[in-house]
Amino acid sequence: MPDKDVAVIGVGQSAFVRGYPGGIRELCFEAYREAMQDAGISSKEIKALIVCCAPEYDKQRSPSSLIDEYLGLNPAPTFMVESLCSSSTTGFAIAYSFIKSGLYDVVCVLGFQKMSEITSQDVQERMGRGADVMWESPYGTSMPAYYAMYAQAHFANFGTQPEDLALVRVKASTYGQLNEKAVYRKKVTFEQVMESGFVSSPLKVMDCCANADGSSCVILASADRAKELSKKPVWVMGVGQSNAPMNLASREHMRGLECARIAGEKAYAMAGVGPQDIDVAEVHDCFTIAEILAYEALGFAKPGEGPSLIRDKQTYLEGKIPVNVDGGLLSKGHPIGATGGSQLRTIVLQLRGEAGAIQVPNAEIGLVHNIGGVGIYGNVIILGR
Amino acid sequence: MPDKDVAVIGVGQSAFVRGYPGGIRELCFEAYREAMQDAGISSKEIKALIVCCAPEYDKQRSPSSLIDEYLGLNPAPTFMVESLCSSSTTGFAIAYSFIKSGLYDVVCVLGFQKMSEITSQDVQERMGRGADVMWESPYGTSMPAYYAMYAQAHFANFGTQPEDLALVRVKASTYGQLNEKAVYRKKVTFEQVMESGFVSSPLKVMDCCANADGSSCVILASADRAKELSKKPVWVMGVGQSNAPMNLASREHMRGLECARIAGEKAYAMAGVGPQDIDVAEVHDCFTIAEILAYEALGFAKPGEGPSLIRDKQTYLEGKIPVNVDGGLLSKGHPIGATGGSQLRTIVLQLRGEAGAIQVPNAEIGLVHNIGGVGIYGNVIILGR
Repeated sequence: MPDKDVAVIGVGQSAFVRGYPGGIRELCFEAYREAMQDAGISSKEIKALIVCCAPEYDKQRSPSSLIDEYLGLNPAPTFMVESLCSSSTTGFAIAYSFIKSGLYDVVCVLGFQKMSEITSQDVQERMGRGADVMWESPYGTSMPAYYAMYAQAHFANFGTQPEDLALVRVKASTYGQLNEKAVYRKKVTFEQVMESGFVSSPLKVMDCCANADGSSCVILASADRAKELSKKPVWVMGVGQSNAPMNLASREHMRGLECARIAGEKAYAMAGVGPQDIDVAEVHDCFTIAEILAYEALGFAKPGEGPSLIRDKQTYLEGKIPVNVDGGLLSKGHPIGATGGSQLRTIVLQLRGEAGAIQVPNAEIGLVHNIGGVGIYGNVIILGR
Repeated sequence: MPDKDVAVIGVGQSAFVRGYPGGIRELCFEAYREAMQDAGISSKEIKALIVCCAPEYDKQRSPSSLIDEYLGLNPAPTFMVESLCSSSTTGFAIAYSFIKSGLYDVVCVLGFQKMSEITSQDVQERMGRGADVMWESPYGTSMPAYYAMYAQAHFANFGTQPEDLALVRVKASTYGQLNEKAVYRKKVTFEQVMESGFVSSPLKVMDCCANADGSSCVILASADRAKELSKKPVWVMGVGQSNAPMNLASREHMRGLECARIAGEKAYAMAGVGPQDIDVAEVHDCFTIAEILAYEALGFAKPGEGPSLIRDKQTYLEGKIPVNVDGGLLSKGHPIGATGGSQLRTIVLQLRGEAGAIQVPNAEIGLVHNIGGVGIYGNVIILGR
């Protein structure tokens, strides 16, 4: 049984798309409206707004205030939080603390990114500057290249094969076709993945998620307010965060995601559960290799044994630990600041039994694993009903 | 007597300068080193690092991870928080919650800005984009112009005069000359202020603070850890935050700072004190008019009566409520993300009786007022010993 101190009482998400036609106000409103309708509360209940995004993708600086105003939340305080791709799970951790500390009783976590404001080439360049701009990014490093290094290290250490990576994308597309909010909704075959061209060896086009525009929204409340406002609260059981060195030269190895392993340990300890207790998980699969690294970091498989999970289909809906059954980033796309909130939404729907075609029967405990940058920021959140 | 739940156990600040010769790593280390020496603790005690800055002034994206690594804090989690000029007091509010909620027991709030990486013209342009880029900044609005509107509204409503503004700068320089970390350390005469050229009428050059490079650091701890680690804890009594509409068209008036008034009310209520109980205050004097608006927002003077406080020298060291006796932003300079931490440092030193030449005798309760953008983000923090 979870401690019932802080609850999620509403979740929402915009469609994730390539090229959203409106501005950031409208984009954010899409997720907000859905989350507020889900929660069944009015804007006056929101006591603080945490806006999560990676800046520099559009001209607006300090978007949090603009969004606070557009959503009609003034004078509720707001600010922006950023930890690259893990921004909205970081925002979730802050919201948890705000409520648990008694500072605010209902908090809205709104993640968004509108990446189509700039060219794809500029996106790659700016993402690259999320690594060290003194020692790494000037030499041409980019996110696919970094994750290719993780893959190469896994291949070299554990005998993992390109085929294992392809299986992750096949699973993603199996479920992505059911997700009406996903960028990619076509079923992809093993052969199609294997035959897609290289981006950065061994990663092929279909090993990579897509940049996207999107928003997500999660509303949290104190126990008292949740009981008053919500018929279907989902409780926060564990919050774990960690950080790994930004410079690769400072890392002990590239065989796994240390930031996620440590964040997971913290979250499990706080929740009083272990990997065997997780009924359904969302993990940060920005590249196929990242999902395999997540299996190992979270203890779903031993180090080096992640590939066997996907080979045996244990992370499919029918397996022992269903992972990314909403299609993952590989299908949904990856609007940086919105991604964590989308993961949280999927788990909340699962725990409420509202996940429809992808429902894991009787899911009681769910986990969200989110990573920022080159395995730098690690966030693990455990929810229960 | 303050609730003794969360304490400040260490404070540090770099010199604020025009053109820091090192990089952001070194800049941040300067404040961190001083705060850690002040706290007398080792890096292993730090459980989370909150990095506060306004991005876009240098090439590095997501600097929090880089700084976490450079300070030797891995695997302690980190992220960036931004609310324009109030970023580090926002970070302080998060740190308070992290500790009060039990998530972390010792948290480091590190604010910095290196504005000299880009030209002054670019700084002005990017600052302008901290207002609405759809309806305002494309038409040439800039921060001096916005605050000139506040001044004009105050003049029109209350008969405030340019001479009142000049008195604020004279006070700032009176104390700024004693602050070895300030950009401007020369005494400025009333005539010099009045004769300085217009930037945006009625604001003259000497009504404006200077862009600067700098860092600040505040270390907070839980009651248990503070008692164990510190001989001189200063306690967090009140934390208030609010937000006003970014678009000026959505504001009811420009006569005062609503975000600060509401944040102040919240902080007073939480602390169980009122304006009359404050022994010493730091307020956000990005422009001279802003200090007068702060007097009124915080209840040190009634609306429209702020100028009488400075005319009567009531905000000097010998007055009824000493304000910005460290020279304020007008003397120290304003390295955006570092400013709030510098204000907090001054108040902490005052409450410990370690403020030297600017010590307010027997200061027991101090207040920090910080504003982001065009009166958008308001943060008020009350500390006590």
